[in-house]
Amino acid sequence: MSRSIDLAVIPGDGIGREVVAQGLKVLSAVLPQDVKLQTHEYDLGAKRWHATGETLPDAELERLKGHDAILLGAIGDPSVPSGVLERGLLLKLRFAFDHYVNLRPSRLFPNTATPLAGRPDVDFVVVREGTEGPYTGNGGSLRTGTPAEVATEVSVNTAYGVERVVRDAYERAKARPRRKLTLVHKNNVLVHAGHLWKSIFDRVGEEYPEVTTDYLHVDAATIFFVTQPERFDVIVTDNLFGDILTDLAAAVTGGIGLAASGNINPTGAFPSMFEPVHGSAPDIAGTGKADPTATVLSVALMLRHLGFEAEAARIEDAVSADLAERSGARTTDEIGDALAVRVAG
Amino acid sequence: MSRSIDLAVIPGDGIGREVVAQGLKVLSAVLPQDVKLQTHEYDLGAKRWHATGETLPDAELERLKGHDAILLGAIGDPSVPSGVLERGLLLKLRFAFDHYVNLRPSRLFPNTATPLAGRPDVDFVVVREGTEGPYTGNGGSLRTGTPAEVATEVSVNTAYGVERVVRDAYERAKARPRRKLTLVHKNNVLVHAGHLWKSIFDRVGEEYPEVTTDYLHVDAATIFFVTQPERFDVIVTDNLFGDILTDLAAAVTGGIGLAASGNINPTGAFPSMFEPVHGSAPDIAGTGKADPTATVLSVALMLRHLGFEAEAARIEDAVSADLAERSGARTTDEIGDALAVRVAG
Ligand SMILES: CC(C)[C@H](C(=O)O)[C@@H](O)C(=O)O
Ligand SMILES: CC(C)[C@H](C(=O)O)[C@@H](O)C(=O)O
Repeated sequence: MSRSIDLAVIPGDGIGREVVAQGLKVLSAVLPQDVKLQTHEYDLGAKRWHATGETLPDAELERLKGHDAILLGAIGDPSVPSGVLERGLLLKLRFAFDHYVNLRPSRLFPNTATPLAGRPDVDFVVVREGTEGPYTGNGGSLRTGTPAEVATEVSVNTAYGVERVVRDAYERAKARPRRKLTLVHKNNVLVHAGHLWKSIFDRVGEEYPEVTTDYLHVDAATIFFVTQPERFDVIVTDNLFGDILTDLAAAVTGGIGLAASGNINPTGAFPSMFEPVHGSAPDIAGTGKADPTATVLSVALMLRHLGFEAEAARIEDAVSADLAERSGARTTDEIGDALAVRVAG
Repeated sequence: MSRSIDLAVIPGDGIGREVVAQGLKVLSAVLPQDVKLQTHEYDLGAKRWHATGETLPDAELERLKGHDAILLGAIGDPSVPSGVLERGLLLKLRFAFDHYVNLRPSRLFPNTATPLAGRPDVDFVVVREGTEGPYTGNGGSLRTGTPAEVATEVSVNTAYGVERVVRDAYERAKARPRRKLTLVHKNNVLVHAGHLWKSIFDRVGEEYPEVTTDYLHVDAATIFFVTQPERFDVIVTDNLFGDILTDLAAAVTGGIGLAASGNINPTGAFPSMFEPVHGSAPDIAGTGKADPTATVLSVALMLRHLGFEAEAARIEDAVSADLAERSGARTTDEIGDALAVRVAG
């Protein structure tokens, strides 16, 4: 385990800066004295784009490579055309750093709101593919803006890309008590990509006889997310289905204010990036209403990835205890303070 | 209004035959004496495919064209490779008959189960595009079955195809009391298709100043489906997003046993096709456990489409009253009987 962390911080837009500040506060509080934490802030996002037209210059991308990990707040602003920052910054990072495992755990913490009646047990993790599928940016438009326009989006799926993420998901399933892995796709319609996913899923599964497997079409999966979320343990799925399912997962487990994620490059060739699933929420930026818990939980995922398992668990326990005992509304800062005190104590 | 109905019936697979029988029972009961109902059954589905290798021969497709409408039960069986019947039969019909409006209403009927706490008001309709997007079957695979395989799926979107469905959705929104239309897409990632959808949505909207509009990314939309479904009135969306969202919608409003749909060709050039949203449920086929209500409600959509508005409303009222007063488990047949009695009375 490295006894120092060299962290790149991208606060980004909207509430990004506020929640990242709390994440860093808790990180400092949880780390043992002898671990040297260095942070380096990168000024990227809407403001930078307005000022310079840049989203993520190559030199910056190069510098980012040198860090142990990246903590990202949120990207996106209504003043910027849709897609510019998402494709030019956030997805550019995920693709450039080959973040092929987009890890999104869902757990219904004590005392949290769920729209579901009866408070089911929820404790699953979605392993979302992060570098392929409909997210590649392949496609284009012809005769744009005319009545004869044709616009395409190409989902690109490779055996190479699918196998490595499926394998990662089996490993994660094997390490969990219930040892269950569900593949979600839509192989009755998207037959080419679906066949690739399903056949690799089945073949790799032969190496994991201890893991129980299951297949669901994405439409059916959404039904089970609300009627029977306790049936899931580990889910592996494509980039777009994973995007949709993890917002739904967040909604049924305490809301998007608690949903953490890691964009992971398991080989270590590039730094992994940790971020809350939520967006930049420009409507509440600066009001102190943003819940930093998702960012704090993303810091826990980061610590686990960097080998600080005990510290990661301490943060998760602190969040759980904090939620169980909370009462009344608190500001972003107050939640961060409360968590920092718990992890330090 | 035509005083005769020449109906093609495709019972299909699994519970398809059972639920279609109840749909026809209620249809016969609700129609005025002077309306001549003719039905013609088509033997299509898994059995036919096993026996002859055919999914939908051209001659059959040609004959189907001659009917006023099509009532379909369900398609799909585990004994048939995934995609064969879906692409070769169900989607072939939707595409051949240019069913560009896939209409899927969601309403929380009295006394029905919802996994949502607090029983929110739900009454919206999804206008799902039915002939484009990721459903076109464009794409393929290269080096299939090898470690170097590449599989693609191409989402094809045209101004022609998007404008006609968006226009249909505005018309429907305009005719409803709340007059609200939400576009759901993912235009921050699928920028080409997303831009096409959004720009047409905005431009056509100028012709409907009385309709309030809204845009949501598909991931965010799933959150609102469970936390605030009452915010929706009419939703217009792409073929795949519509598939996913309407299963989720069914889940939050009494289950897939109540979800009806119409695959509509609004020009009348081809017969429209009505079917429950649920699948063939082979696990309960023949047990009498299938709920035929979704099929009966699909018959109501069909009657409305054919100009029998009063009869359509009578069926919907009957379903509502039946659900409000029901107690205990009933068989497929008993539910059909109860509804037939109500609509006749
Ligand atoms: C902002 C957007 C590009 C992103 C995605 O679609 O992946 C977000 O929704 C997420 O889930 O991280
Ligand atoms: C069976 C399948 C091809 C179909 C679809 O994806 O459209 C079904 O899920 C539906 O929603 O009607």
